[in-house]
Amino acid sequence: MATLTKNEIKITTCETSKINSIDFSNLAFGQVFSDHMLTCDFKDGKWQSPEIVPYGPLTLEPSAKIFHYGQSIFEGMKAYKDANDNVFLFRPMDNIKRLNISAKRLAIPELPEAYFMEGLKALLDLDKDWIPTAEGSSLYIRPFIFASGEGFHASPANAYKFIIATAPSGAYFSGKVKVLIEEKYSRSANGGVGFAKAGGNYAGQFYPTQLAKDKGYQQVIWTDDTSHEYIEEAGAMNVFVRINDTLLTSPVSDRILDGITRKSILELAEAEGIKTEVRKVKVSELVEAAKNGSLKEMFGAGTAAVISPISGFGFRGEDFEIPEQDNSFGLQLKERIVAIQTNKTEDPYGWRMKV
Amino acid sequence: MATLTKNEIKITTCETSKINSIDFSNLAFGQVFSDHMLTCDFKDGKWQSPEIVPYGPLTLEPSAKIFHYGQSIFEGMKAYKDANDNVFLFRPMDNIKRLNISAKRLAIPELPEAYFMEGLKALLDLDKDWIPTAEGSSLYIRPFIFASGEGFHASPANAYKFIIATAPSGAYFSGKVKVLIEEKYSRSANGGVGFAKAGGNYAGQFYPTQLAKDKGYQQVIWTDDTSHEYIEEAGAMNVFVRINDTLLTSPVSDRILDGITRKSILELAEAEGIKTEVRKVKVSELVEAAKNGSLKEMFGAGTAAVISPISGFGFRGEDFEIPEQDNSFGLQLKERIVAIQTNKTEDPYGWRMKV
Repeated sequence: MATLTKNEIKITTCETSKINSIDFSNLAFGQVFSDHMLTCDFKDGKWQSPEIVPYGPLTLEPSAKIFHYGQSIFEGMKAYKDANDNVFLFRPMDNIKRLNISAKRLAIPELPEAYFMEGLKALLDLDKDWIPTAEGSSLYIRPFIFASGEGFHASPANAYKFIIATAPSGAYFSGKVKVLIEEKYSRSANGGVGFAKAGGNYAGQFYPTQLAKDKGYQQVIWTDDTSHEYIEEAGAMNVFVRINDTLLTSPVSDRILDGITRKSILELAEAEGIKTEVRKVKVSELVEAAKNGSLKEMFGAGTAAVISPISGFGFRGEDFEIPEQDNSFGLQLKERIVAIQTNKTEDPYGWRMKV
Repeated sequence: MATLTKNEIKITTCETSKINSIDFSNLAFGQVFSDHMLTCDFKDGKWQSPEIVPYGPLTLEPSAKIFHYGQSIFEGMKAYKDANDNVFLFRPMDNIKRLNISAKRLAIPELPEAYFMEGLKALLDLDKDWIPTAEGSSLYIRPFIFASGEGFHASPANAYKFIIATAPSGAYFSGKVKVLIEEKYSRSANGGVGFAKAGGNYAGQFYPTQLAKDKGYQQVIWTDDTSHEYIEEAGAMNVFVRINDTLLTSPVSDRILDGITRKSILELAEAEGIKTEVRKVKVSELVEAAKNGSLKEMFGAGTAAVISPISGFGFRGEDFEIPEQDNSFGLQLKERIVAIQTNKTEDPYGWRMKV
């Protein structure tokens, strides 16, 4: 794999920064974009040198395969700034490794890790002022790769674009969500691409999610496509269930994303003395626990929201509420993880990376 | 739904045609593109008027949702020219209806049928000279819709582009292909988007297909993701099996595309006195038939290749050859369908549409 240091990256800066036009006190999630982006082309059989250029439009042929065959993958990350203006990433090597796991499954050429990491460092150096500091906010980082090569033939492209764009962002979700346990539509197949952060995994969720919204829910709990007996993910997040004082989550599989927040939560819970079990969780078990009062919490876990608390679920026309907890594991673990991410506490795990 | 006639479509022609630079005697499939394309934008809550413009690059923001969430669908069609320069389409209304079925599942706003049909007619009028006439060639037509709206939030876009591009093309496949029956990877989930022509369905096939190619096969036979006991599709085509003198194909489902070539073959076979059965076909039945000599033919069926004959299959390390047939159903039905498509015979079905 190619090597590179951030100082070797060619930088073309924008003529005027648009930072003063942004209301940092009122940021939505992923709606405004920083001044620059990293771009890197795959062509002639290899990844070319990454460059930093002003954030701006891409030009593609109508026959570019991204428009036709869904050959695209992405990652989600965040950068945080502490009180001393130090910039931090959270477990970035895990994103890089997962991007390449996704790349392999989608027949996209794997990216040299240094191109990603050094490119990102150089980009954050340049757009450091774009990292918001208000509670709950962060610079959302979106690395993605898509097929730019041409042709109306369903086969892998011969050219790709890797881009890192960044967006100063407020919190992803606000408030608790009510979820619907989905028994008809599915997110992923056995032997499919559900474990990858492939674009197509998300588009397929929009319609069932809209149907759930029409019924008064905000999200869908995906179940396995074979039996619909087991819960697998919550919207585009991993899902956790607390029954009495045990925190449960499904094992990762070829259908379930190996979430970085998910595995961080499992480790932190352990350290906090919270009992965890990684095992398949039956819908029937959830319903039973809701009925007998042992279902204490449910939450989604992912980079964007960190933890997204669930207030209740619908199943076969019946609604089950989850009562508010005084000692919420979700809140406790979210505080722990955010404190580590934002350099407000020790990081015994080596997860935080100073840029 | 909005109405429109082809004469109402705004046309901007290219300054110089590139048609003279194209070697029409040596056309690949979907590699060169005609002078113009139809474009139509969805914004402000509705599909705007379609326009014809010179075929050329598209400009999109890096945050356009197509790059991140795979929200895209397409169709494949062909235009043919007969000896008198008349132009024909084959069952185009079925493509339009299927595009909107795909649109619904992918949470893309449905397109007014007239925008598609009248737009396509106007485009073919203008680029009529691009329709090749050599045996097996056609003007391949690629209608597609993708999410152009922006934002790093996994939700449906608020803007889309519908485009029809065309490509003078030779035959899609040449020769017979050897296929591998896939038992690990899958194409689609129960309750997923397999029945839709969604971009993501194709990207997920590339890696398993490459693995099959590395083993000496050209294509994959997809099986159901739950049990892998039933054959479902052949690469990006529907699959037919002839056992003795009965032609079998799987019923369509939420995992299997409702192919226009597939259903045309079923109807034509009936008319030709070929017995057909639409039912699930077990891999074990295929292996048994190959062993006892009753497996006479296998072929893929789809718009691009029409019929793609299969010479044999691999299953669990064993290869099974399918002997050459004197009275090939596949060839017979391909001749019939192509004769109807190209106006060389009567069309009792009303499938052919003169443009």
